[in-house]
Amino acid sequence: MLSDNIKRNGEGVLHFASQDVTALAKEYGTPLYLMDEQRIRSNMRMYTGAFAACFRPGSRPLFASKAASFKTIYRIAKDEGMGVDCVSCGEIATALSAGFPAENIYFHGNCKTDADIRYAVENRVGCFVVDNADELLALERIAAENGIVQRAMLRLAPGIDPHTYAEVNTGMVDSKFGAAVETGQAMELVRLSLAQPHLLTEGVHCHVGSQVFDEDVYERTLDIMLPFMDRVRKETGAVLPVLNMGGGYGVRYLESDRSVDIPARIADVAQHFRSVCAALDFPEPIMLMEPGRSIVADAGMTVYTVGAVKRIPGYKNYVIVDGGMGDNPRYALYKAPYTVYHAAKTGAAMRCDLAGRCCESGDILRTGVELPEDTCRGDIVCVCTTGAYNFSMASNYNRLGRPAVVMLSESGNYVAVKRESIEDMLERDV
Amino acid sequence: MLSDNIKRNGEGVLHFASQDVTALAKEYGTPLYLMDEQRIRSNMRMYTGAFAACFRPGSRPLFASKAASFKTIYRIAKDEGMGVDCVSCGEIATALSAGFPAENIYFHGNCKTDADIRYAVENRVGCFVVDNADELLALERIAAENGIVQRAMLRLAPGIDPHTYAEVNTGMVDSKFGAAVETGQAMELVRLSLAQPHLLTEGVHCHVGSQVFDEDVYERTLDIMLPFMDRVRKETGAVLPVLNMGGGYGVRYLESDRSVDIPARIADVAQHFRSVCAALDFPEPIMLMEPGRSIVADAGMTVYTVGAVKRIPGYKNYVIVDGGMGDNPRYALYKAPYTVYHAAKTGAAMRCDLAGRCCESGDILRTGVELPEDTCRGDIVCVCTTGAYNFSMASNYNRLGRPAVVMLSESGNYVAVKRESIEDMLERDV
Repeated sequence: MLSDNIKRNGEGVLHFASQDVTALAKEYGTPLYLMDEQRIRSNMRMYTGAFAACFRPGSRPLFASKAASFKTIYRIAKDEGMGVDCVSCGEIATALSAGFPAENIYFHGNCKTDADIRYAVENRVGCFVVDNADELLALERIAAENGIVQRAMLRLAPGIDPHTYAEVNTGMVDSKFGAAVETGQAMELVRLSLAQPHLLTEGVHCHVGSQVFDEDVYERTLDIMLPFMDRVRKETGAVLPVLNMGGGYGVRYLESDRSVDIPARIADVAQHFRSVCAALDFPEPIMLMEPGRSIVADAGMTVYTVGAVKRIPGYKNYVIVDGGMGDNPRYALYKAPYTVYHAAKTGAAMRCDLAGRCCESGDILRTGVELPEDTCRGDIVCVCTTGAYNFSMASNYNRLGRPAVVMLSESGNYVAVKRESIEDMLERDV
Repeated sequence: MLSDNIKRNGEGVLHFASQDVTALAKEYGTPLYLMDEQRIRSNMRMYTGAFAACFRPGSRPLFASKAASFKTIYRIAKDEGMGVDCVSCGEIATALSAGFPAENIYFHGNCKTDADIRYAVENRVGCFVVDNADELLALERIAAENGIVQRAMLRLAPGIDPHTYAEVNTGMVDSKFGAAVETGQAMELVRLSLAQPHLLTEGVHCHVGSQVFDEDVYERTLDIMLPFMDRVRKETGAVLPVLNMGGGYGVRYLESDRSVDIPARIADVAQHFRSVCAALDFPEPIMLMEPGRSIVADAGMTVYTVGAVKRIPGYKNYVIVDGGMGDNPRYALYKAPYTVYHAAKTGAAMRCDLAGRCCESGDILRTGVELPEDTCRGDIVCVCTTGAYNFSMASNYNRLGRPAVVMLSESGNYVAVKRESIEDMLERDV
């Protein structure tokens, strides 16, 4: 199977996190997001352990919570000693509501409004990751109004092409994010920040894209960012103590995908990091990273009920399920591939497209998948590795309520997010 | 300007539905969906008038409510004598909550669950548009359990390529929707339906795709559907009294787009319809059509506040606003183009990408747009023709609340959908 938290027993019955998926579908209804709490925790520990082992004290991973933002996740992140990366007041509020400490929140985003900045300042969010000069000046003004000195990092565009999807490819010079090192705008932003009396400029940030597999992406990033920090020291005298590399490593969506030995890769990056710092005679900064997908993706599975099987002779077969682009828009957005398993049947395979229930031809979950020939209405079908960017990107398109999120845990399953009812959807209508 | 409900006054101040957009932004906040109630009504009247003039009594347009599903829209549709096309219990419930008569609802969708069917039957929804045999048999069973005879139409795939976006191209043989005429499966579905004692098979439905400009798409559709209905008469003896052509005509997103004279086109279609019926000696069916986009698209405008302007020398300029793919995912999904206007400035143009605030490079609203060179943080920028598939496709991605929908009306503006608050987003979290 794709991941070691997915197994079939002797009768072919699919288990996720050691639990019978069909039974869970019956208990909680479909479509349904399942999350394996133990897997989230072990993924977090993989990163926190590697950072503690490889970098100087204070270094740590921040969970990029846009991958999956709901209360329970922040509670778990707090337990596991992760920082979090939030991109909106909604994410900050959710983190705070779970008791997550404000000082461990890093506030990202390329368009923070005055209201956003005020909310974060008033709630004592630890650090702003400032994207641009417009934001910087607004933050200085609001920090001054509040009589505080706000910690800030500056988002830079190092000009790295990580060879991932165009849509998640964010570290290039031509980017809506950050200030480019190449054009001199990064240095201008640093100088502007250092000149602000109510900002404590603690470091620089970059994000070269997510779903990174290439062996040397972070090494190449360090080769730009550390010399840049050295130039900042030479040109301004400021020794910035923190470097945030963004994140994170890729996850396996298909059985044919490579897997990444993340602790080993972090150790490699750390070795390169130390050698570059030594060559520059630059004091090793505190290192941060922002894994999101690789924390939660393989902890998730989406469970659907088949509504129809359609065989069009000479054309194609369709297996149609009771969810789709509403709960997982990633095929519609990126043609993102997923692994699909039938929850109970293992017979001869039928090639088909797994289609959703939305009234839109593009509502496909996966093309060219193999499902048992005797798949029929009422069967349960599972899409794997949906823990990242599914719940968080879900919509009410076609006025369909969003699925519940059920956490699977050895100490007892529990609902982390309730299923969205028709009444919930009508709540804002006047 | 793109549409005659958008105007600039002598000082260059942008008005929508005769109202100052900047003042509306100030009053209601941004991002904000504006809807021009009068334009919705006149678009509806354009269709209802044309149908009354061109086809036999009982013929009428059904509003494809997935384009924009909220309470107010159904109230207006009821006022204007439209039927509605609903694709989920959520849409049905919203229509009913607005007092829309159940008997004028057509229930669509390729994956109706037993619970969906039961809900619609118990709420006396007028007509099911049955997609497939699995659904048909479930509907027969549930109608029998409820002791009723349920009106039903059958969705067929006529095999027409309307040359629109692949994603909205739904009438081909290889489709997740309906039963194909070409393969004989359409006739099988008709026979199966006619054999059910608790179903009243009143006609056939097809949908060749939306955003149709091509002059003869509906004529080609009739050339397949009417002979098919004639074959049904010959092979089964049943004269089906209703034909639903789906919908609808294209709308202008760019100033360079053609405009369609919809009443004239419907008159042309009607002439062809009569001649085909006459040639077949087939009694003219009641005609239905399902416009959605062309009812609401040009009645909508989205209003944003600029958060940052980024000029990357040698590369590109970005104007970044406080919304994006969360409230309008259509660029991310289809690279759909929109027209963008600055709400107040009209000076020398700067070529730029209009980018959203989501932490994702693909969060773009429009590439290569021209905005005034002196555009800056705090300015108001408007995206036109957003009345369709914006509100209804919106998500909470990045945990951003969805915008309010404000109806602009001569008798007084009003909030149709309240802005989504942080508390709203936390409501389902446990």
